[in-house]
Amino acid sequence: MHVTIPSPISWTADHAVQILDQTLLPEEERYVELRTVEELAEAIRSLRVRGAPLIGIAAAMGVAGAASQPRNAEGEQERLQRVREACELLAATRPTAVNLKWALDRMCLRAERAVQEGENLKDSLVAEATAIWEEDRRMCQRIGELGAPLIPSGATVCTVCNAGALATGGMGTALAPIYVRHQAGGAPHVIVPETRPLLQGSRLTAWELHRSGVPVTLISDSMVASRLRLGDVRAVFVGADRIARNGDVANKIGTYGLALAARAHHVPFYVAAPSSTVDPATPNGAAIPIEERAPEEIMAWRGHRSAPPGVGVWNPAFDVTPAELITAIITDRGVVEPKNMARVID
Amino acid sequence: MHVTIPSPISWTADHAVQILDQTLLPEEERYVELRTVEELAEAIRSLRVRGAPLIGIAAAMGVAGAASQPRNAEGEQERLQRVREACELLAATRPTAVNLKWALDRMCLRAERAVQEGENLKDSLVAEATAIWEEDRRMCQRIGELGAPLIPSGATVCTVCNAGALATGGMGTALAPIYVRHQAGGAPHVIVPETRPLLQGSRLTAWELHRSGVPVTLISDSMVASRLRLGDVRAVFVGADRIARNGDVANKIGTYGLALAARAHHVPFYVAAPSSTVDPATPNGAAIPIEERAPEEIMAWRGHRSAPPGVGVWNPAFDVTPAELITAIITDRGVVEPKNMARVID
Repeated sequence: MHVTIPSPISWTADHAVQILDQTLLPEEERYVELRTVEELAEAIRSLRVRGAPLIGIAAAMGVAGAASQPRNAEGEQERLQRVREACELLAATRPTAVNLKWALDRMCLRAERAVQEGENLKDSLVAEATAIWEEDRRMCQRIGELGAPLIPSGATVCTVCNAGALATGGMGTALAPIYVRHQAGGAPHVIVPETRPLLQGSRLTAWELHRSGVPVTLISDSMVASRLRLGDVRAVFVGADRIARNGDVANKIGTYGLALAARAHHVPFYVAAPSSTVDPATPNGAAIPIEERAPEEIMAWRGHRSAPPGVGVWNPAFDVTPAELITAIITDRGVVEPKNMARVID
Repeated sequence: MHVTIPSPISWTADHAVQILDQTLLPEEERYVELRTVEELAEAIRSLRVRGAPLIGIAAAMGVAGAASQPRNAEGEQERLQRVREACELLAATRPTAVNLKWALDRMCLRAERAVQEGENLKDSLVAEATAIWEEDRRMCQRIGELGAPLIPSGATVCTVCNAGALATGGMGTALAPIYVRHQAGGAPHVIVPETRPLLQGSRLTAWELHRSGVPVTLISDSMVASRLRLGDVRAVFVGADRIARNGDVANKIGTYGLALAARAHHVPFYVAAPSSTVDPATPNGAAIPIEERAPEEIMAWRGHRSAPPGVGVWNPAFDVTPAELITAIITDRGVVEPKNMARVID
């Protein structure tokens, strides 16, 4: 069995960034080309392209494709300045994910080196962005191989949001162990909470797993605790937007409640993420900025009002799961207990 | 301040049942008349009329208004038989709520007594249904008075689904303490999880609280644990569809996860319900039948597909919160610890 998920990102022949517009799934599979840094920033903010690893890759590709294009009568220093400004603009689009900043820092450094050493700026940046993408693909594969043995044969597992092929440059993070196990005939079955408000679970995770032949059972987020109480879920796999030095993990809102339910029912709770998700500069979860998004995400869906106008809304996009609720963190560097996280990154 | 929620139920002049169609809120406030038992059964199954106490009242009113109407050349025994059949049909519409069965049992008994004692069948049943409604209104008021002192001045509290005026014949169960506190100037603020899949939290609870001038903050169900972690929620109030002898409580799916989060953050967790919700015949939560509803409730919303066709769905409408997670149960008979539940009903 070979998994064939359409890639959510690619280069066009002339190095524009082509993305699968994830806001339209599952009703429509539409690819769009992003030719400017502003278009890319809009696509990240509106979640047309999303998933911590993927927005890092997309931003890197956008900087390479758009900001490094020479303009008439422009010197190398002016182009370098444009690259830096593009990186700043893109870094501000989503405050919680750390991969974005990590990828953009890499692009800036590479741009500076290219100018310093007289290399072609655009070629250097295209090469760097492609390397980031390729490294992510390999990290996903490695996470899958490390995590797959944690899934018993024929087991039901649970995830949240989308930390799959649609969120990365490869086969995903949380879903990678599931895909590897599936490819090896291990017949995993996945409980997918729909993940309100933007339904990344039902729209994206159910879509990519179903398309890959992995059996899926969709539930609403409110059913997570009951499903774990039912007793058939053998492990939980979630992604991460940022991992602090102490092993606290920021991930999609709802992850913390799932972790509490997993603890109550003695279900192992695994976080899977590329090592670039670990932020040495963040001591603990309390130091992670949590993005709050627009009230309209909860007040309406596809134009239909679901709440009366005028009520207050609290809409944080992420929550923090404390290290003590996490059984292990799976990165490309190994499977470690959260308390040993600092050792992995130092 | 006087709470003025439109009543979700009323008699028409000729004793048909008029209901507020709750499936259309908050986009439209439409009242419909139900003239046959079949129409009423459809309205209960499709949740046009919902809430454990209210469906008991609606069913009783429907039996009185429709099944007790004399038909040509029909004897008293045949009319009594029609009343019994109506009760059976209606009792099967929702298996979890016990108030429904309780109300219909009362109607059957009253019908038998009326025939036995030569009373006018229709008048007797209209009187019995009206009594059930009026008792519920008083029980709500009593629950409100008993529960209000549990809300500190200016406190933020949390609920789930809708256990308010729209779910009862009065000011609600879980919301009654909040309304009483609000009327007394206690300035409560309510966190309302939207309650997927059918959004009774955002569509109904936010609507009726907002309309009554109670400040509301809407969240998605996935935010419950994070909000409790934030530290501002001082108490949780939920309703109940059935309370077992041992104090286990069946209520809207999501209640159990909320109870786990409340326990983790040392927030008192109160269940509020009329004493008719306690089922002496149900020893514990495991004995409560849990209604599973159609996959389409999770697969789509207002005609817009939110999940790919072909995936599996698990859609239980209720969950069971074990007695040990419940601080106290508030009924019209008092505020008791769940372990003392049996004492209340015996």
